[in-house]
Amino acid sequence: MAEQVTTKLDLQERQLSSELVYEGSFLKVDKDVVTLPDGQTATREYIRHPGAVVIIPLFDDGRILLEKQFRYPLHQVFIEFPAGKIDAGEDPLLCAQRELREETGYSASDWSFVCTIHNAIAYSDEHLDIYLAKGLTAGQAALDEEEFLEVFTATLPEMMDWIKSGQITDVKTVIGTFWLEKILAGKW
Amino acid sequence: MAEQVTTKLDLQERQLSSELVYEGSFLKVDKDVVTLPDGQTATREYIRHPGAVVIIPLFDDGRILLEKQFRYPLHQVFIEFPAGKIDAGEDPLLCAQRELREETGYSASDWSFVCTIHNAIAYSDEHLDIYLAKGLTAGQAALDEEEFLEVFTATLPEMMDWIKSGQITDVKTVIGTFWLEKILAGKW
Repeated sequence: MAEQVTTKLDLQERQLSSELVYEGSFLKVDKDVVTLPDGQTATREYIRHPGAVVIIPLFDDGRILLEKQFRYPLHQVFIEFPAGKIDAGEDPLLCAQRELREETGYSASDWSFVCTIHNAIAYSDEHLDIYLAKGLTAGQAALDEEEFLEVFTATLPEMMDWIKSGQITDVKTVIGTFWLEKILAGKW
Repeated sequence: MAEQVTTKLDLQERQLSSELVYEGSFLKVDKDVVTLPDGQTATREYIRHPGAVVIIPLFDDGRILLEKQFRYPLHQVFIEFPAGKIDAGEDPLLCAQRELREETGYSASDWSFVCTIHNAIAYSDEHLDIYLAKGLTAGQAALDEEEFLEVFTATLPEMMDWIKSGQITDVKTVIGTFWLEKILAGKW
């Protein structure tokens, strides 16, 4: 859970009004008028996102389950941890269990919360909850229509190399891997 | 620079058409029709972003220059590295030098590229280039209108503690801190 950060200055921006200015099939954009700390007004545009979960699926032998997925906005394939959007009202842990099963077929008997991250604080209210999943059992994947991905495994040293070399650049995967290194080293 | 990731399956989605569906004062949304790997068509909505830079300003004594900034989409103050959007046609390194000066007043004599990250691959084409800045000299900040922030310093162990405790959750700051730990340990 994120802790409150204290400040010396008043940095708060206060909402005067809020308008849904774009509602697409996938994205929603809000445009709010706010009061700035100096009393002036400004507009703030941002994506409204339900939040997402990320799963670090760790096998007993230390290998990690990963996905390769084509991400259209960047026209390139990314190496990623399994992840998915939280459905309205859904518990994040149940969402993580559902997404792992749907995307990879795997179930896990041992789940623990790792951390929450915020990935686009200038223009989205998205947060991602990262979970570590152990005690993995293979099963049948059930991908959403329009979802295509390749599942594979790698070791932690391979993943650290790929972060260093720029083959892993997706923030949820970079951060999950750094945390996993700390956890496996018994430091965190 | 991001390396190409190879796949066994064809995961590519191919653009059939593209439309600018929302153009706000700050955000632009594109909606494209694409062909999926199985030949079906689907729509893809995403933010078009010019990219951004992130600066890790490191003093000779090992302290790190940071900012506290209120981020409206999440209605909370975040601990962050200095960062900013790349202007049209601007060189990322020059942008990093400009943003560090504008936001904190500091100039740096020694700049090195750290890594590129992608922070919202499902719905934005944003990338962030992270730089390490050493040889810092104080000067006069020149904040944009509508920009309010508090500058402070911390040590690397403090930042690692704040990541662990959830006081630092902003992805560019989390990733820059993990990289800095590797760099200062002489590992990367």
